[in-house]
Amino acid sequence: MSQYFSFDLQAQDGRARAGLFRTPHGDLQTPVFAPVGTQATVKSLTPSHLDEVGASLVLANTYHLYLRPGDDLIAEVGGLHEFMQWPRPILTDSGGFQVFSLGGINQIDDEGVTFKSHVDGSTHRLTPEKSIAIQENLGADIIMAFDECAEPYDRVYNQRAMQRTHAWAERCLNAKTRHDQALFGIVQGGIFPDLRAESARFIASLDFPGNAIGGLSVGETKEAMHAILEVVDPLLPEDKPRYLMGVGTPEDLINGVMRGVDIFDCVLPTRLARHKAAFTSRGRVNVSKAENARSTRPIDEACDCYTCSNFSRAYLRHLIAAKEMLASTLLSIHNIYALIRIAKEMREAIFEGQFSAYAARVLHELA
Amino acid sequence: MSQYFSFDLQAQDGRARAGLFRTPHGDLQTPVFAPVGTQATVKSLTPSHLDEVGASLVLANTYHLYLRPGDDLIAEVGGLHEFMQWPRPILTDSGGFQVFSLGGINQIDDEGVTFKSHVDGSTHRLTPEKSIAIQENLGADIIMAFDECAEPYDRVYNQRAMQRTHAWAERCLNAKTRHDQALFGIVQGGIFPDLRAESARFIASLDFPGNAIGGLSVGETKEAMHAILEVVDPLLPEDKPRYLMGVGTPEDLINGVMRGVDIFDCVLPTRLARHKAAFTSRGRVNVSKAENARSTRPIDEACDCYTCSNFSRAYLRHLIAAKEMLASTLLSIHNIYALIRIAKEMREAIFEGQFSAYAARVLHELA
Repeated sequence: MSQYFSFDLQAQDGRARAGLFRTPHGDLQTPVFAPVGTQATVKSLTPSHLDEVGASLVLANTYHLYLRPGDDLIAEVGGLHEFMQWPRPILTDSGGFQVFSLGGINQIDDEGVTFKSHVDGSTHRLTPEKSIAIQENLGADIIMAFDECAEPYDRVYNQRAMQRTHAWAERCLNAKTRHDQALFGIVQGGIFPDLRAESARFIASLDFPGNAIGGLSVGETKEAMHAILEVVDPLLPEDKPRYLMGVGTPEDLINGVMRGVDIFDCVLPTRLARHKAAFTSRGRVNVSKAENARSTRPIDEACDCYTCSNFSRAYLRHLIAAKEMLASTLLSIHNIYALIRIAKEMREAIFEGQFSAYAARVLHELA
Repeated sequence: MSQYFSFDLQAQDGRARAGLFRTPHGDLQTPVFAPVGTQATVKSLTPSHLDEVGASLVLANTYHLYLRPGDDLIAEVGGLHEFMQWPRPILTDSGGFQVFSLGGINQIDDEGVTFKSHVDGSTHRLTPEKSIAIQENLGADIIMAFDECAEPYDRVYNQRAMQRTHAWAERCLNAKTRHDQALFGIVQGGIFPDLRAESARFIASLDFPGNAIGGLSVGETKEAMHAILEVVDPLLPEDKPRYLMGVGTPEDLINGVMRGVDIFDCVLPTRLARHKAAFTSRGRVNVSKAENARSTRPIDEACDCYTCSNFSRAYLRHLIAAKEMLASTLLSIHNIYALIRIAKEMREAIFEGQFSAYAARVLHELA
C-alpha cells in the first residue's frame, strides 16, 4: 500500500481470514480486538496492563480529545503515542459517531456538523477536513473518514446519510496530508442490503488502505448485523483489512470473523467491568451476586489472565461492594484479555483450517 | 522474640536506626513505610504495582474489614494475605482509631466500645478480646492492641484514655492465641510529656515484640509531635521495633527516624493522589494547575518510578480533568514510591553514618 503500511493475507478458512497489517508502530496480527481508550486512557488500566493482556491496537476518540485536552496540545507534546505512552498502533475514529450520539446537534448539512460540547456546552463545527486535521494532529496509525451514522431502520435518513458519507469520504482523502497514517473508508447504509451494497462498492472504489463497516451494533438485531456483513464482505477488496466498528461481545467477534472481518473495537469490556460483569467461556457473569460472597474460584477457571490467576470471586465481590477502584481494574484486565484471547484463538484456528469447529464449539459454550 | 519473629538492629546513627524485622511473610528492612489498604486494597493499585514500588509492608484496617466483608469470611477464604493476594507482611490496626473517628459512638466504658457501623448503621461492640479475635481471623503478621485515642490537647480525657489503653493492652496480651502474629502495644497520652513517659514505661514493661506510638498526627503541631517522640523514644526498648502510627509526610518520616522510629504507615500518598497532589523532592505539587497543561516534564525529574519514567504532567493533568481513574493510579504509584524511596535512602544513610547530613539536605530541599 505504501512504505508505511502493508496487509498480507496469511491464511483463509471459509470467509475467516488471518492477516498481518504492518503499521509505523508495529504489526497487527489479525483478527485483532482493540480496547477503547476514549480519553487517551483505556479506563482504569496502565499501558503496562494493556501490554500484559496482549493488546496490540488501541482506539482513541477524536471527539473527546479534540474537546479536551485539544488536538493541538497533544500535537505540541509529541502526539498521541507519546502522550498516552502507548508505543504500538493506535486508531482514532473520526468524531462523527460521538457528535451524533453525545454532542447536542445544532445543524447537519452537506458541509459538516455544528454541535455543542458535552463537556462545557461550547459550540463547535466538524467537517471532513477538520476531522482529518484533528486526526493528523493526534497522529494515530489508522485514521477514519468522517461519516454520518444514521438510525439503522430509517431508510430515507440512511440513504441521505450514506450519500453524505460518500461525499465526505472523498473529501477526507483529499484533505489528508500525512503519509504515515492509513485512512480507512466507512461503509454505511443501515440495515438495508441494497444501500449497504451500494455503499460497499463506492467505498471500495476509492481504494482506501482499509475499509470499515460503520452503523452496526447501534440497535439493530444480531440477525440484521450478520445479514449486512454477508452483503458487504464480498464487495470489499480481499487485500485490505476490514474493520467492524464498535463491536463487540465474544459472540460478535466470532460471528464477525466468520463473515470476513479482521479488526474490532469496543468499549464493552471496560464498561462491563464498571458494571460488575465479566465475560467467561460459559457466558457473562455478575460478580457482585451473593453466591460469589465466599467463592474462592476465579471469574473463569479456563482463563489465565492476571485477575483469574490471582483473585477470588469473593475478593472481587468485596471490592465491588466497597466501591474500590481496583474492582474496575481487575475486571477490565480480565474482560479485555478474554476478547484478545478469542481473537488469538480464532487466528490459530484459521491457520489450522479449524475455524468452523472452533466457532461452533465456543458459540455453543457461550450459549 | 519467637520462632516467627526477630528484630536485629543492624546500624545506628544518632537516634536513627536500621534494622531487620523477620516475620512469617518475609523480612522488613527498617526504616519502612507501609502504604494503607483500608479495605484490603491500596486504593487504585494492584499487588503488582505495590511490588513494583518496592512495598514490603501493607496495612489493612480491622474496623472496615470486620464490617465488610467480615473477618469470618476472610478467615474462611484463607486469610487476608490470600484474600488480597499480598504475599509479604501485613499489619492490621485494632479498629480502635476508626471506631472513635468513623463509628457513631454509643457508649465507651472500661469493658469496650459500642458503636454504629458507618456502612449500614447497625450496632456493634468492640472490646480488646473482640479486636484480637478479629485480627486473628484476618491473620496479619503484625497486629495491634486495642486502644483509646483521645483528642490530643484534653489532659483529663488523655489520662483516662491512657489508663484504659493500658488495661486493654494487658487484656489483648491475654486474649491472643496465635503465635504467628506479633502483637504490638501502643503508647498513648496526647501531647503531655508526663503521660507519654508513664505510658511508654508501662507499655515497655509488658514486653510486646514491638511498640507503637499512637495518638499523634491527629491535630497537634509538628513541634508537639517531635517533643513527644523525644520523650517516648528513650523509654522504649532498643531491641524492639517502634512504629509511629498514621504518619506521614516525607518530612514526618525523616523527623521520625531522627527520633528513633522504625515503622510508619499513612493514607496520605493515596489520598493526595485522589486530590491531584504529588510529592516531589522540592515539596508538594498540584498536578492539575494550569501551568502543567503543556508540560512534558514528569512530576519529579529526580524520581524514577513508573509514572515519572513515562508520563508527562500534561498527560496527568488531562487525566485529572477528564476524571479518569488512571490519574489516581499513576499519582498513587508515584507518591508511595516517593515515601518508600525516602525510607530506603534513610536506611542507606544510617549504614553509612550519614543520616544527619541526609536529613538536613532533604528537609532543606523540601522546605
